[in-house]
Amino acid sequence: MAQQADITAMRRAIALAARGLGSTSPNPVVGCVITDASGHQVGEGWHQRAGGPHAEVHALREAGVLARGGTAYVTLEPCNHTGRTGPCAQALIEAGIARVVYAVGDPNPQATGGADTLRAAGVEVGHGLLAEEAEAGNIAWLTSVRRGRPFVRWKYAATLDGRIAAADGTSRWISSAESRADVHRLRAESDAVVVGSGTARADDPHLAVRGIEGAVQPMRVVVDTEASAVKPGARVLDDAARTVIAVAEDLIPEETVHFPETWRLSRAPGGGLDIGELLAALHQQGVRSVLLEGGPTLAGAFLAAGAVDQVVGYLAPVLLGAGPTALADAGITTIADALRLDITETVRIGPDLRVTAVPTATPTATSATSKGA
Amino acid sequence: MAQQADITAMRRAIALAARGLGSTSPNPVVGCVITDASGHQVGEGWHQRAGGPHAEVHALREAGVLARGGTAYVTLEPCNHTGRTGPCAQALIEAGIARVVYAVGDPNPQATGGADTLRAAGVEVGHGLLAEEAEAGNIAWLTSVRRGRPFVRWKYAATLDGRIAAADGTSRWISSAESRADVHRLRAESDAVVVGSGTARADDPHLAVRGIEGAVQPMRVVVDTEASAVKPGARVLDDAARTVIAVAEDLIPEETVHFPETWRLSRAPGGGLDIGELLAALHQQGVRSVLLEGGPTLAGAFLAAGAVDQVVGYLAPVLLGAGPTALADAGITTIADALRLDITETVRIGPDLRVTAVPTATPTATSATSKGA
Repeated sequence: MAQQADITAMRRAIALAARGLGSTSPNPVVGCVITDASGHQVGEGWHQRAGGPHAEVHALREAGVLARGGTAYVTLEPCNHTGRTGPCAQALIEAGIARVVYAVGDPNPQATGGADTLRAAGVEVGHGLLAEEAEAGNIAWLTSVRRGRPFVRWKYAATLDGRIAAADGTSRWISSAESRADVHRLRAESDAVVVGSGTARADDPHLAVRGIEGAVQPMRVVVDTEASAVKPGARVLDDAARTVIAVAEDLIPEETVHFPETWRLSRAPGGGLDIGELLAALHQQGVRSVLLEGGPTLAGAFLAAGAVDQVVGYLAPVLLGAGPTALADAGITTIADALRLDITETVRIGPDLRVTAVPTATPTATSATSKGA
Repeated sequence: MAQQADITAMRRAIALAARGLGSTSPNPVVGCVITDASGHQVGEGWHQRAGGPHAEVHALREAGVLARGGTAYVTLEPCNHTGRTGPCAQALIEAGIARVVYAVGDPNPQATGGADTLRAAGVEVGHGLLAEEAEAGNIAWLTSVRRGRPFVRWKYAATLDGRIAAADGTSRWISSAESRADVHRLRAESDAVVVGSGTARADDPHLAVRGIEGAVQPMRVVVDTEASAVKPGARVLDDAARTVIAVAEDLIPEETVHFPETWRLSRAPGGGLDIGELLAALHQQGVRSVLLEGGPTLAGAFLAAGAVDQVVGYLAPVLLGAGPTALADAGITTIADALRLDITETVRIGPDLRVTAVPTATPTATSATSKGA
């Protein structure tokens, strides 16, 4: 049985880890709390950005000599490899830490083994404490390691009857100001924001984060297969953030000359681009979390490709009875093939309802049994 | 300031009132608690069915002589008229009740005046206690009095992307067994269940209440304008409950010969039947609450007619990307004309989410200022 003091310290570490969301990729978010031999907190830290010190190093620095004989609570198994910073397992040993408790095992084959190194040095090691909470906080990075592609969160805003615009195409505003502010938080937590050509054409979105101090701007990606939607002067082409336009590989250079950065990808058999190839290209660029903001066609392609890990729907208490729906063809024609989800959270956001759900029994969910291992 | 004892007694009265839902029309649901002069509960009752004793009479019978000098808590202003039973105001006076507290004033012009009668007899009268809760419990009847037509609750079950069936028409089951059981509760609380011809044709629904002991079966109504959907042998034609088929007035008798009861109504200009006329016919038959179970076309017609007072959506965590949507043409073409609602409740029902909402700022909502008056 975990002691209350252990739970309190780990919960603090999980809260600290969350501060890094959106700025640590390709690394995970990690939080660390250090208590001295008598159980008082003497240090804390979190991983703030890739290339910077790991959470354990921040916390050890704050604790100084008080770490000796103490306990380190870490949300993720301390790393064992020397990357841009030294291995944390070694740093903990050198600081004289007597006990390490981590929540989730490191599934990254390059980094794993930290627990073994600690044990070999005589450090008491415990794991699995608040594993579920810690895993939820690090779900993007963990999913990216397990699936070898970025974690994809599909966000949509729709009426109660599933419409994203009225029959005449007007959609400002279906969701509330509160919901739209919440979307900026989701953007800030993501490494890339992705939309399709229909959305680019209809809304001319900017896709940058507004209203969140210190946010790292995510990469903006428009899937514009025919290079027909993003026109010179489009808002997404400003210098607020890196912008990538993904087009079909067979387009001639003249068609993409006004794009700051063009990725040429294979066409998918059913139209559009190959989603797997797009995700591989993003992953290769260090993107570990993608916020897919639509529209319905691109969302359908992602779902058909099995490439949606989480759904966040902002449901506005509005009825339209006509107009485009949040989701277009996902390759599902009969109820037996419906994509089934589990609702993990529902929250009122202003007048709207935010529903978060994850696909039922995906390979990702299955491999979650490795947590805390 | 209301005393805690008053609140406790009125809350009990409201809970008692709810037991009558679905069986008292055309009367309201009413609950009553009687305490003696020292504040101890000595009687309680609720209105169980039209023609039977009112709530106050049940409670007074239980209290007997202990009512003398006591307080009666009633969810609705005691009636002043002699209908099928004597006026309750008079009964309370004769029993020697010293104080009457009621939650909501009676908007029915035939019955109002009970408070004045009580005061004239020297009874202390208070009102407005827990008026909002009592009003919510009696919303169907109160709406029917204020609007002169039955209260209409539109229920639908859809996927997160707003679909009620897959592209091939299959829909069993989108919502969970728990949600379907909850719908039977809604049916049991309603005086009539209404569906359109599309639903009758696609699902051959039975529309009776199952699984709820003692439930009064609601009237089953199919809006089958052309008498083309309800075929001989349709499940709705069995003897489980009264069944009405509403058709266009210009149909010839041969087309409706297999219906147990046929209502001939005017056609609406845009197709289908005149919704106002249908509701007037239902009201005339004593129906005070309608559960509109769809489908999308009929729901659109009701919404376009301003005849939906409450929306209850069962949202299943399922995605389809194709298939019919929960709501078809409601006469809305641009976002400025969208029907805006206020969410009043969200509850998890098994794996699903039940969202209840009411139209924003309708005449009904405005006249709610008369509550407790």
